Amino acid sequence: MENTNRIAPELEVESWLNTKGESITLEGLRGKVVVVEAFQMLCPGCVTHGLPMLSRIADTFAPYEVVTLGLHTVFEHHGVQGSRAFIHEYRINYPVGIDAADPAGTIPRTMNAYGLRGTPSLVVIDQAGIQRAQSFGAVSDLAVGALLGQLLHNAPARDESPSSSLACTDDGCAIR
Amino acid sequence: MENTNRIAPELEVESWLNTKGESITLEGLRGKVVVVEAFQMLCPGCVTHGLPMLSRIADTFAPYEVVTLGLHTVFEHHGVQGSRAFIHEYRINYPVGIDAADPAGTIPRTMNAYGLRGTPSLVVIDQAGIQRAQSFGAVSDLAVGALLGQLLHNAPARDESPSSSLACTDDGCAIR
Amino acid sequence: MENTNRIAPELEVESWLNTKGESITLEGLRGKVVVVEAFQMLCPGCVTHGLPMLSRIADTFAPYEVVTLGLHTVFEHHGVQGSRAFIHEYRINYPVGIDAADPAGTIPRTMNAYGLRGTPSLVVIDQAGIQRAQSFGAVSDLAVGALLGQLLHNAPARDESPSSSLACTDDGCAIR
Amino acid sequence: MENTNRIAPELEVESWLNTKGESITLEGLRGKVVVVEAFQMLCPGCVTHGLPMLSRIADTFAPYEVVTLGLHTVFEHHGVQGSRAFIHEYRINYPVGIDAADPAGTIPRTMNAYGLRGTPSLVVIDQAGIQRAQSFGAVSDLAVGALLGQLLHNAPARDESPSSSLACTDDGCAIR
Repeated sequence: MENTNRIAPELEVESWLNTKGESITLEGLRGKVVVVEAFQMLCPGCVTHGLPMLSRIADTFAPYEVVTLGLHTVFEHHGVQGSRAFIHEYRINYPVGIDAADPAGTIPRTMNAYGLRGTPSLVVIDQAGIQRAQSFGAVSDLAVGALLGQLLHNAPARDESPSSSLACTDDGCAIR
Repeated sequence: MENTNRIAPELEVESWLNTKGESITLEGLRGKVVVVEAFQMLCPGCVTHGLPMLSRIADTFAPYEVVTLGLHTVFEHHGVQGSRAFIHEYRINYPVGIDAADPAGTIPRTMNAYGLRGTPSLVVIDQAGIQRAQSFGAVSDLAVGALLGQLLHNAPARDESPSSSLACTDDGCAIR
Repeated sequence: MENTNRIAPELEVESWLNTKGESITLEGLRGKVVVVEAFQMLCPGCVTHGLPMLSRIADTFAPYEVVTLGLHTVFEHHGVQGSRAFIHEYRINYPVGIDAADPAGTIPRTMNAYGLRGTPSLVVIDQAGIQRAQSFGAVSDLAVGALLGQLLHNAPARDESPSSSLACTDDGCAIR
Repeated sequence: MENTNRIAPELEVESWLNTKGESITLEGLRGKVVVVEAFQMLCPGCVTHGLPMLSRIADTFAPYEVVTLGLHTVFEHHGVQGSRAFIHEYRINYPVGIDAADPAGTIPRTMNAYGLRGTPSLVVIDQAGIQRAQSFGAVSDLAVGALLGQLLHNAPARDESPSSSLACTDDGCAIR
C-alpha cells in the first residue's frame, strides 16, 4: 500500500449500479471515509481477493462513516458486457460505478486520473477528500484495518450497538 | 473483541522463552502498544488462528512500537510439558511467557487476573498501560488492525523505511 | 456424486476453444477416460471450485489416458459474451466447448441432453463411452480421485516417468 | 507418493488409544485396505495436512473396507508426553498407536521398519497385506483417492446406502 497525499480526483462514471438511479460523487461524501475497489469482471485477483476484501471492510466498519464503492474499470477486452449479470451472480450489493470510457484511449477516465496500475486496486480517501492510500494487487487486512483505524480515530460510531468494535477514543474505552 | 478500560494487570510469568534470559514486564513496556496472545499447545484454534495472527501482527507493525508476546496459559492437562519443543517446531521467535501456576486452583495467575475465558485470547494494551481490548476465539484482522491503527495514530515509525505502511498522521501522508 | 450407467450423450458444441480449430467428439475419445466440467463465466462456484478442480485432475492424471474438457453452458444471462477473454484471463489451456444454444429454449443442448442441474457440474465418462458419474456443485477430490482410480485400474501410464503416481496394477507395484 | 511393493512390516506399538483396550495388528486386518498416518504432536505439517487428510479419507471411504489408523512416531523431543490430551483436543476418534521406542536409538520401531523419512507420512496397505504406497509430507487428495479407488476396484460397499460414492464395477454402475 503506497501512501499518497493529494486531493482525490473526482470519480468519472458512466452509470451506477445498486444506487436506485442516483449518482455518487466524492464531493457528496465529504465527512466520510471512502474505500474504492477498482476491478474488472474477468480478473481472477479481483474475484479472489479484491472484492471479498471490500465486503469484509463493509461489514467490519458498518457502525462507522465508511463508504465502500466498487469501480468497474474495463481496460482490457473493452466491449465485454455483463457487469449487471456479474454483480447479480456475485451478490454484490454496494454501489458500483462503471468507469467512463475515454474515446482517446483504452484506459477509462477515473483509472487514468488516479494512475491506477491495474486491477484489483484499492483507494482510500479520508473525510476531507484527501487520498490517503492506493494499492495494486493483494494487500493485507491488518494494514488496511490499521489505516482505517487511524482515519476513524475519535470518530463516533453511527450507532451504539454493542457489536461496535471500535469504541476506543483518546478518552478511554467504554465497557458496554 | 470486547472493549475494556482499566489498567492492565501485570503479567505473572514463571519463565520466559526467546528473551535471552531476561524477564518482561508491562511496566517496562510503557510507551509501546503490547499485543498478548494467550495460548495452549494442544489447542487447535490457537495453532490455526491465534498464533498465526500474532505473527502477522508482528510483521505488519514491525516499523512501529508494537510488542507481540505469547502467553502459554496451561489450564487444561496441567503437567503437559513440551513448550520449548512446541515453540521450536512452530518457529515461534517472539517472547513467550509461561503463565505462573496458582497452587490454589487450575487457572494460572495471569489468565485469572485478566479473566480470560479460554484460549486463544488476544489482549491489547496501549502506550499508557491501559487494556483496550480482549477477545476470546477468532477475531478478524480488519478489526485488530483498526484498533492498532487507532492506538498508533500520530505515532512515528521507528524507521523511515519505504515499506512503512502507516505513515499518515493528522498532518497528512508523506509520499516516500 | 451420483452414479449413472448409460451411454454418454454426444457433446453438442457450437465451437471449440484451445483446440487449434479442431472439433472434439466423445466418439473420437473412445479408449480414454473423459472428465467434463460444465461451467459458466459468471458463476462463483465454477471459478472457486469447479475449474480449479479440473486443472488439478489434468495435472494429477497427466501420465494417463484422461482427457479434461470444459463445457461453457450458458443458461443464464444468455447473450453474455466474453468466453474467449475469460479463458485467457483465467489461463485455461484445455479445450473448452461452447454448448450449442437451443432455439426452442434457454437450456443449451448438451446441458439438456445430460440433464445437468446447473453449474458447476462434473461428468465422468469411461473408456467405453459409458457415463459413470455426474455431480452438481462441490465434490471432493478424494471421491473423484477414487472413481478415476477405479476406471484406470490396470491402465498403463502413457509414459514411464518416475513421477507417475498410479503405477500399481493387480500384479503389484513397481519400485521405480 | 512413492510406490512400494513388499509385505508391509507389522506395526510395533506400545499402546493403543481409542480402541477400548484392544490391540490392532495388520495381520488381523487382512481383507481390508489400511491407511496409516504417522504423525507427531508438535509437527505443524501433521496438524495442518496429515491428520485432516486422514479424517477426510475415513469419511469418504466409510462405506468400504478401509481402515484408518494414526501412528504416533515420536522421534524428536522424546519424552514429550501428552498424546492422550492431544487426541482429545483435536477430536481424533480413530485408533492411534504409540510407536514403540527402540532402546538402541531415537527412531521408534515401526518408523524404522518402514524407513519413514519423517512426519507426516502416509502408508497405504492393500487387502493382501502388501504395502502399496508411502509418502512423506503433503500428498494430494486426488492421488490418494486414485490409489484407494484402484485398490477398491470391484470391492462391494459394506452397506447399500445411497450416499455410497464408489458403486461402479467393471459390470457398470448401478443407479441407486
